[in-house]
Amino acid sequence: MERKTKVNAEAGKQDLVITREFDLPLELLFKAHATPEIIAQWMGTQVLKLEGKKHGGWQFETKDGQGNVVFKANGVFHEFIPNQQIIRTFEMENAPFGPQLEFLKFEKLTDDTSKLTMHVVYRSGEDRDQVLKMPFEYGINMAHDRLQEVVRNL
Amino acid sequence: MERKTKVNAEAGKQDLVITREFDLPLELLFKAHATPEIIAQWMGTQVLKLEGKKHGGWQFETKDGQGNVVFKANGVFHEFIPNQQIIRTFEMENAPFGPQLEFLKFEKLTDDTSKLTMHVVYRSGEDRDQVLKMPFEYGINMAHDRLQEVVRNL
Repeated sequence: MERKTKVNAEAGKQDLVITREFDLPLELLFKAHATPEIIAQWMGTQVLKLEGKKHGGWQFETKDGQGNVVFKANGVFHEFIPNQQIIRTFEMENAPFGPQLEFLKFEKLTDDTSKLTMHVVYRSGEDRDQVLKMPFEYGINMAHDRLQEVVRNL
Repeated sequence: MERKTKVNAEAGKQDLVITREFDLPLELLFKAHATPEIIAQWMGTQVLKLEGKKHGGWQFETKDGQGNVVFKANGVFHEFIPNQQIIRTFEMENAPFGPQLEFLKFEKLTDDTSKLTMHVVYRSGEDRDQVLKMPFEYGINMAHDRLQEVVRNL
């Protein structure tokens, strides 16, 4: 089955672009990126902090069944404009690559559909290529599928 | 006269590296980047906000003699480790280029000397090259000269 989320990573660069069209109105797509309870569901993580505003911070943490932390990430919102744009830093903790800068653009396509464009800039080309060695496109496509399901069932 | 601050911008990339060795102990070099009153002096700007901590925000504003705002910039601290490292976003407002991600590394050389390494990652190669068309190296070298003078006279 074709993946709906596309990742475009040009060779030799230190950035990449992720695009996805959702069968969701713009407002719901944005809400899924700004509401702790909804993020928790589609990302499958605990949202420890989410200050949804310019210069706010955020922090996620995921534990396994035994209570061990298996994923931890944090960052700050450089910009936070509802239904339009989020600019944030993103760092996966205890990972072999540094923090990255992410530009998320939210666009209305029709009343019932919308588009997310994520431009991710890494510290280096090596960092980006490390990330791409993981099942990155698979993972983000799966998360976006879940996002759409979760929000439609709200 | 040779400039002490060096800018290394590799062709075709979207980042650059700025290095400078100071005749200042490490602690004073860091203080010059973390203390509003000192930043105001060497950068010649008003520091409207400087929350010197992880996930804190900052904001600078410069007015001319008539009270007109001639420079405005803001960002967030992704990381803030005294005498070691600052990771921050930096955006010059009303400029033709987007926010950038900056990694500042502070190192002790001897008891009286220290080194600053700034790795700046831009949104695109075009953004970086726009910045480099301004008297960028000249400006940052002058600011760093002033930093050293200001801090030595504290």
